[in-house]
Amino acid sequence: MRCVLVSTTLDMRAVFAPEIARLQGQIDFVDHPDFAAANDVQLALAWHPPADAFARYPNLKAVCSIAAGVDNILSCPSLRDNIDVVRVVEPAQAQMMSGFVIWHAIWHQRRFATYRAQQQNKIWQRLPQRTAQQVPVGILGHGAIGARVAADLAMLGFPVKVWSRSAKPPSPGITAFHGRDGLRAMLQDTEILVNLLPLTPETRGILNRDVFTAMRRGGYLIQVGRGEHLVEADLLAALDSGQLSGAALDVFLAEPLPKEHSFWSHPGIVLTPHDACDASLAAVGGTVLATAEALRAGMRPGNVVDRGTGY
Amino acid sequence: MRCVLVSTTLDMRAVFAPEIARLQGQIDFVDHPDFAAANDVQLALAWHPPADAFARYPNLKAVCSIAAGVDNILSCPSLRDNIDVVRVVEPAQAQMMSGFVIWHAIWHQRRFATYRAQQQNKIWQRLPQRTAQQVPVGILGHGAIGARVAADLAMLGFPVKVWSRSAKPPSPGITAFHGRDGLRAMLQDTEILVNLLPLTPETRGILNRDVFTAMRRGGYLIQVGRGEHLVEADLLAALDSGQLSGAALDVFLAEPLPKEHSFWSHPGIVLTPHDACDASLAAVGGTVLATAEALRAGMRPGNVVDRGTGY
Repeated sequence: MRCVLVSTTLDMRAVFAPEIARLQGQIDFVDHPDFAAANDVQLALAWHPPADAFARYPNLKAVCSIAAGVDNILSCPSLRDNIDVVRVVEPAQAQMMSGFVIWHAIWHQRRFATYRAQQQNKIWQRLPQRTAQQVPVGILGHGAIGARVAADLAMLGFPVKVWSRSAKPPSPGITAFHGRDGLRAMLQDTEILVNLLPLTPETRGILNRDVFTAMRRGGYLIQVGRGEHLVEADLLAALDSGQLSGAALDVFLAEPLPKEHSFWSHPGIVLTPHDACDASLAAVGGTVLATAEALRAGMRPGNVVDRGTGY
Repeated sequence: MRCVLVSTTLDMRAVFAPEIARLQGQIDFVDHPDFAAANDVQLALAWHPPADAFARYPNLKAVCSIAAGVDNILSCPSLRDNIDVVRVVEPAQAQMMSGFVIWHAIWHQRRFATYRAQQQNKIWQRLPQRTAQQVPVGILGHGAIGARVAADLAMLGFPVKVWSRSAKPPSPGITAFHGRDGLRAMLQDTEILVNLLPLTPETRGILNRDVFTAMRRGGYLIQVGRGEHLVEADLLAALDSGQLSGAALDVFLAEPLPKEHSFWSHPGIVLTPHDACDASLAAVGGTVLATAEALRAGMRPGNVVDRGTGY
């Protein structure tokens, strides 16, 4: 089976070299758009594809993403309705995300920003501490990753609330909310807000002034969804007013974040370069192979994105 | 029952004011040494007592510590053999310690020191990441706190090994070692070493060059035991040689850490002012009350320290 590599932001052949070598013989990887016989392409591995990318492949049946987020593929104008978009779902990825979120939650709970500043100034000053039980966490998004993050935070003693678009089956020790009304109820007394939502028209701009205002004063935002979820000016205003005491940002409207952006040097912001979690190379290769095998067998691939909800 | 408050480092009456008020009527708290009728004292609440403190109380039966570590009480020359030393054991304390250790383990695993430096210099650079499974953790000490830290780290995916002086019953998912030979075996390939040992003559200076050398190169020390466990010069040498890539230090030979100490500004050291975990005021008050009730009933108190092992 022929699989085309398509990206405007990554050198896919270099990034996935080990998996491409491993799958040789089973999958014929070609580079968009420089090859003959585009009709033979049934499968694509894509990340931020160019707008006209998929128009070139009349027999394309499935596009694999390299991550759990697929908004950059769904928004491609040349993606026809009859092409399945497949996302990578990997337990190790949920675990990576969970460790990252936990680190930021404890950074806030245990006042490590103050400790770091004290060390720089050689100040020995013990700080009043709170238990995890005193710091309620609200999680936006209740998919595979959200469920893992929620379970781990609950195990560490944080009161955990989870919000999703539609109702989900309950999990032990987790309070679940859903829908517009549920969001307001979930935010009530939430001190740490974790954004794990997929980017869809409904969730764009969801991290805004209304949401920050509904949280507990002095709250903390952990933003590991997509840059477009956040209204940047509203975050800066919430930090300036003290409604939020800090924010961890891993994703941004513009990536790489421009040097002149005020986030870089804001004292309340801890930023990372979209590194909270990656699917492993092996998981991406495994997804491509499973998708190819499904297509060969005339079956629908697994982990196909619902075009209605966008995830 | 009369309980004397004894400390050279803390204003016990101020620190424990809420619990002292709560227990009024059941326990008569007096301040060492300024009161009459020292013969009436059967109970003490102590922290770093002066050398001659207990000589004043001929009928003293039990000394409650304010924390899990009791070395500062056991080393008091006026502590007679027939006085029971009681330590505070509290699940919330193990949880506080666990969150603190987890934060440092993820700081090392996920390379947050580099991210922090990159943010300061406005550098957008993704960093190769490892899963928790790739970062083995060794824990020195397998009491109530060690067991909780081990279980939590294992749940987050870290391979966990635990070492204790004597053999303990096995825990699921944890590899247990004990004794001198077991220490060497446990350190083999350990990348993060967590010290949770009590301070005893056997454990003094245990964090030394031999131990650091036996670990995986580029390892990381999380030192939350007692300052006397660490040979400071050996740590600095291990950091300078690259055998260790960093260290989290919460306890020190001299506390407060003197301003001129090189730890303050060492780039590989994250230090905190002996704040990893405190017993809660309520737990200390509860321990005093339970000890008083046992004495009144003519019974031996719970959580008495074994003078042979020192914990």
